[in-house]
Amino acid sequence: MARLDDLGEKKVVSRILERLSADIEVGPGDDAAAIDMGLFYLVVSTDLVSTASHFPEGMTDRQLGWMMAAVNYSDIAAMGAEPLGLVMAMALPRALEVERVLAMVDGAEACSKSVGASLIGGDTKESAGIVLSGTAIGKVEKDGLLRRSGAREGDLLAVTGDLGIAAAGFFAIREGIRFPEGERALMEPVPRVREGRCLSQSGVVTSCVDISDGLAHSIHLLSDSSGVGFELDWDSIPIGKGVAAVARECGIQLEELVLHFGGDYQLLFTVAAEGMGALRNSLPETRVIGKVIGGRENVLSRQGKIVELENRGWEHFGR
Amino acid sequence: MARLDDLGEKKVVSRILERLSADIEVGPGDDAAAIDMGLFYLVVSTDLVSTASHFPEGMTDRQLGWMMAAVNYSDIAAMGAEPLGLVMAMALPRALEVERVLAMVDGAEACSKSVGASLIGGDTKESAGIVLSGTAIGKVEKDGLLRRSGAREGDLLAVTGDLGIAAAGFFAIREGIRFPEGERALMEPVPRVREGRCLSQSGVVTSCVDISDGLAHSIHLLSDSSGVGFELDWDSIPIGKGVAAVARECGIQLEELVLHFGGDYQLLFTVAAEGMGALRNSLPETRVIGKVIGGRENVLSRQGKIVELENRGWEHFGR
Repeated sequence: MARLDDLGEKKVVSRILERLSADIEVGPGDDAAAIDMGLFYLVVSTDLVSTASHFPEGMTDRQLGWMMAAVNYSDIAAMGAEPLGLVMAMALPRALEVERVLAMVDGAEACSKSVGASLIGGDTKESAGIVLSGTAIGKVEKDGLLRRSGAREGDLLAVTGDLGIAAAGFFAIREGIRFPEGERALMEPVPRVREGRCLSQSGVVTSCVDISDGLAHSIHLLSDSSGVGFELDWDSIPIGKGVAAVARECGIQLEELVLHFGGDYQLLFTVAAEGMGALRNSLPETRVIGKVIGGRENVLSRQGKIVELENRGWEHFGR
Repeated sequence: MARLDDLGEKKVVSRILERLSADIEVGPGDDAAAIDMGLFYLVVSTDLVSTASHFPEGMTDRQLGWMMAAVNYSDIAAMGAEPLGLVMAMALPRALEVERVLAMVDGAEACSKSVGASLIGGDTKESAGIVLSGTAIGKVEKDGLLRRSGAREGDLLAVTGDLGIAAAGFFAIREGIRFPEGERALMEPVPRVREGRCLSQSGVVTSCVDISDGLAHSIHLLSDSSGVGFELDWDSIPIGKGVAAVARECGIQLEELVLHFGGDYQLLFTVAAEGMGALRNSLPETRVIGKVIGGRENVLSRQGKIVELENRGWEHFGR
């Protein structure tokens, strides 16, 4: 019988999705589910963080709580929704100090307040390791829901801000290099809720996803859901300040940090070409990094050379 | 520094609640949170089940998934709401067999379908033990929201069905006694969604809670939230068929099973005395088991003798 680490997270998830039959507007498989409430869509996302997963060394309990909240609000942002609140269920070892649990709660509450929401409920139970599981709820106007599907040939591909910073933070910590911006990006990611709302209200965005597991993998997600191909232009990608220097010092290819690692939680989206000008005014950090092309292949263009864009990102249960 | 098992679950939760400041209709501390959506309340509950907690021996993976869903829908039911859907985050050991995970998903989906809802999203991550965390969403008319507060002196105390069956199932398994009804009640609890909707729509119910951690503790919850006392009449409590026999065979006091163990997930509620007749027609299993009295003490009346009702139920992190 196959084990989880034989298949890897993505194949396990697709085996799960085959079994579900939810009759809602956006079901399992997008960043969040969307339920038709008549006048608006209710958006629901769940994500957990576990100390058995890839926690960066030196992460504080407060940051752990923040992280759990942030990854959930990021999914709400990717749907274009306004967050209403977060519930947090905590599985905790019985010998854990109470102060540590309260620090986790404070982190989740602080992140919630930063996006104009709050922690509205929770649960605590005993377990072997620490698992924080969050569910964020949001609402979005019916014509403002952003999905992974919807990208059309000719659309531009854009990103809401700099990439590679969290990845550089991860490797900087591992190699003992000082890079505080990276550490902070990695451990206290900012959910792009304001950006998601702008994209939603612009009326020109055709698809959207958050970049949690890396840019390359996120492009493949949009490609799979929309049934289109993408050409990503390496030279247009906004790379965070200091990322290239960390890559050099660590002896890691810059492409690994920018394309495959993830953790920056920026939004990746497609937009009708004529709509980009207006978006740039409200979101000045936004950069066009490619375009939607015919066919289903995703390619990387670099100084005129075109190569295949590998579908490689962070994979849980992988070996 | 205090550890979780020094304080116990209930004190840890109250330490957490002190730190939160959610500006919503019903915040942390009730069975579920309620958010004012204009025309209705959105109700949100989160609950996790962990193999490190008190799992009955012999529970199947499908039952584990069912249980996770059921405890969440039970909280939605206790608020009088109609369930809209459930998200499930799973923390899983990497060596776990994929088929076991799919069985858990099937259980959660089956329980969802049984209450007219569906599994609408999820997440999987790696962890040391198995932790299934669910969040259920529901909606309820603005005048139909049931809370723990609201019980008034003179109201009747009632329960939606038989008690003690799940507890008897637990001890029957432990002692090797055959009691299939109890095993089923324990491992596949039925969320009382239909009953919750009836109570909500009746217009006569003044407070409600689900009996997850035992009848005595649930009465104390209503007492604390409503600021009233209760007199519970032992001889009126509907005790499940076979429960007394199991108690005898196991050498356990019947009161332990009926008052303190929990797991039946019936709804406990208060109702204006004149409203009980109409409720009995739509919910024939419902039984009056006591009344709201003056003061703040909770007492047990048994054959004319009045004793204190101990506030003792299931406690996580307890030693």
